[in-house]
Amino acid sequence: MTKKGQQAGSLSRRSLLGGAAAIGTTAALKSAGALEANPANLPPNVSEWTPYLGAGVDANPYGVPSEFESHVVRRSVEWLTASTESSVNFTPLQDLEGFVTPNGLCFERHHGGVPEVNPVDYRLMINGLVDRELIFTLDDLKRFPQTNRFHFLECAANGGMEWRGAQLNGCQYTFGMVHNVQYTGVKLSDICREVGIKPEASWVMAEGGDSAGMNRSIPIEKILDDCMIAYAMNGEALRPEQGYPARLVVPGWEGNMWVKWIRRLEFGDMPYMAREETSKYTDLMEDGKARMFTWVMDAKSVVTSPCPEKALMSKGTQLLRGLAWSGRGKIDRVDVSLDGGKNWQTAELHGPVMDKCLTRFTLPFEWNGEELLVQSRAMDETGYVQPTIGELQKVRGLNSIYHNNAIATWQVHADGSVDNVRLG
Amino acid sequence: MTKKGQQAGSLSRRSLLGGAAAIGTTAALKSAGALEANPANLPPNVSEWTPYLGAGVDANPYGVPSEFESHVVRRSVEWLTASTESSVNFTPLQDLEGFVTPNGLCFERHHGGVPEVNPVDYRLMINGLVDRELIFTLDDLKRFPQTNRFHFLECAANGGMEWRGAQLNGCQYTFGMVHNVQYTGVKLSDICREVGIKPEASWVMAEGGDSAGMNRSIPIEKILDDCMIAYAMNGEALRPEQGYPARLVVPGWEGNMWVKWIRRLEFGDMPYMAREETSKYTDLMEDGKARMFTWVMDAKSVVTSPCPEKALMSKGTQLLRGLAWSGRGKIDRVDVSLDGGKNWQTAELHGPVMDKCLTRFTLPFEWNGEELLVQSRAMDETGYVQPTIGELQKVRGLNSIYHNNAIATWQVHADGSVDNVRLG
Repeated sequence: MTKKGQQAGSLSRRSLLGGAAAIGTTAALKSAGALEANPANLPPNVSEWTPYLGAGVDANPYGVPSEFESHVVRRSVEWLTASTESSVNFTPLQDLEGFVTPNGLCFERHHGGVPEVNPVDYRLMINGLVDRELIFTLDDLKRFPQTNRFHFLECAANGGMEWRGAQLNGCQYTFGMVHNVQYTGVKLSDICREVGIKPEASWVMAEGGDSAGMNRSIPIEKILDDCMIAYAMNGEALRPEQGYPARLVVPGWEGNMWVKWIRRLEFGDMPYMAREETSKYTDLMEDGKARMFTWVMDAKSVVTSPCPEKALMSKGTQLLRGLAWSGRGKIDRVDVSLDGGKNWQTAELHGPVMDKCLTRFTLPFEWNGEELLVQSRAMDETGYVQPTIGELQKVRGLNSIYHNNAIATWQVHADGSVDNVRLG
Repeated sequence: MTKKGQQAGSLSRRSLLGGAAAIGTTAALKSAGALEANPANLPPNVSEWTPYLGAGVDANPYGVPSEFESHVVRRSVEWLTASTESSVNFTPLQDLEGFVTPNGLCFERHHGGVPEVNPVDYRLMINGLVDRELIFTLDDLKRFPQTNRFHFLECAANGGMEWRGAQLNGCQYTFGMVHNVQYTGVKLSDICREVGIKPEASWVMAEGGDSAGMNRSIPIEKILDDCMIAYAMNGEALRPEQGYPARLVVPGWEGNMWVKWIRRLEFGDMPYMAREETSKYTDLMEDGKARMFTWVMDAKSVVTSPCPEKALMSKGTQLLRGLAWSGRGKIDRVDVSLDGGKNWQTAELHGPVMDKCLTRFTLPFEWNGEELLVQSRAMDETGYVQPTIGELQKVRGLNSIYHNNAIATWQVHADGSVDNVRLG
């Protein structure tokens, strides 16, 4: 809405934005819900932060975000959190741009809290069906040839509360169990060459050093294909809650398998039937049976703005933003609908588009106050198309938790506010 | 050296690493200078961090590094720092992996301290030779089409103390005025389309909102080619010391031109002869004349490990790490010498190799305690080859500060310690 006493800039037909002010007016069009600017800080005045010497280089040897960004944090859902020590929080996707997740905002999921591992005492033990059972120090791992790869990590339960309806009214809570960083580490194929794999080895049990002793079984083909032991993320050492000083990286597969604080890899000839692959991380089907070992995270996408946390603040030209990913390879295309799936437009993908990596997409659109039903639909290079919740429910029923990659719908109201809704 | 009472693992000829221990011994080969492990934490014992519930998800809504990584920080050189408010610190390149610089470790350089800009009051003013002088809010900028690009930012004075000899004994202090992040923002060509550029406009003066009123002149061709106004880095809002809430990005050109806290772009028909392009940021030549407007950062590289801060901790297989970059495009090749430039080997480049972006390279090598003279030499896609200091001095003399992209030499001694030395 236009505030009385203010004038919008005189805009020609060539103008993209309705909100930019001609010089001489004191502010842009006032948006619903927008914070009021302090006129003393606006041109032609000298802003209050300009005349005085600012903070020096010694203020923060390790830098921190602006205090004006203090709302951009990982958040947990109280009723989802059984205890403060063993639970989950969510990445604030709605406030992020690009495809790198800053390390401080990568969601956490742990089953026994975050252990404080002294890197001097860290060891990775390899045993079982190998020629040489060996124990590696962190320094040993860093002397191996190195691999550097961007990969998304998504919890199998991401969106798990949304199987029966739109339950949590936020992008962060319904999609925020995913993050994407550049990992640096050692290919497991190189470690396997070092220890020598016996011909009968077909499974690997990966075990963490946390108090849950988190462990999972992984087929040897995946281990030799693209798994790695990572010791760095986004250029620096792994964060404690992401497995410092070393974790398993299992590209494209559910996050639970990316064992953190990894202390042991046992090579065997059958799966280990660990707690986390029997009592949990299975997919309950409509007939009451449960599927095991559904490791791959299928193609998925989400519109990160607008979304329940990101209302539209003005009419006119908008830039829709979103993220897409696939555990089967590269994202090929993302389509966006503003009318609940009747009409679709293809969004722009922002490169580099990489294998098993988040891909940023954007789409400009005009908004004049009409109601919108915003959806996005990802397609990956295998030809797979992200399904509707109806299509998923036909196969999986209503009682599943894991592997919900359904298209979501954000309803934009006339006042610009946004709700998570269920269509059909 | 091997510690008494410990045994190295029995290693076959197939073994890559000398340091990995066979299971049953208590530790790997003890390295010179390495911290002593606590035997109680090593296999087969249960480590002290395992039996107890660790920290919960609410410990750090915005995560922080492990306390064991507290040495990985930006550092300043006391005698280089005229005041704590107006100076420089350095990225700890020797401790980083991959090519993403974490936001908290991106070096700082400011001329009037870090202003605290309230994003609600932030404005970008466009004036001069344009059809429509306009003022944009931050929300306006975020409604433009978006670009996402990884780029290095290097201060023109990086390595400036090394013109006459090896002066600072550290990788961080001699190469650390560079960082590399994914920027999200608006192409200046899109903003120019919005305001309409008059035909006679040939230069743009970019001005910051800090107390220095930092400003620089940029030719319109560069502005329209690939410059952008960035509002995010590595996925989140710009950090205060990097120009929050918006900065200019001038890919491949000296960092001083990437005006932070940007408040104004004035379009004109000649350069503005600002203080920072006349009294500073010029290149003094051998004959006492100074070159102006030497904007491009030529191809450069550095070995980040081993380096003065990263001694070799053991004999046997090592992994040399380094970074290369060019302001003229992509890195094409990096060669590494271990004998002061007599023999060269081509290093592995870790993709994606991108335009005007840091590129990680690695090279495995064997070390048996002999002295090494380690060098790296970058080549970019234009065919440019990183020069020796002698080649640079022939053209530039001894009194330059800026644009030193000479090959550096790290001398590795028999005990594994490393010094910055000058060859020839």
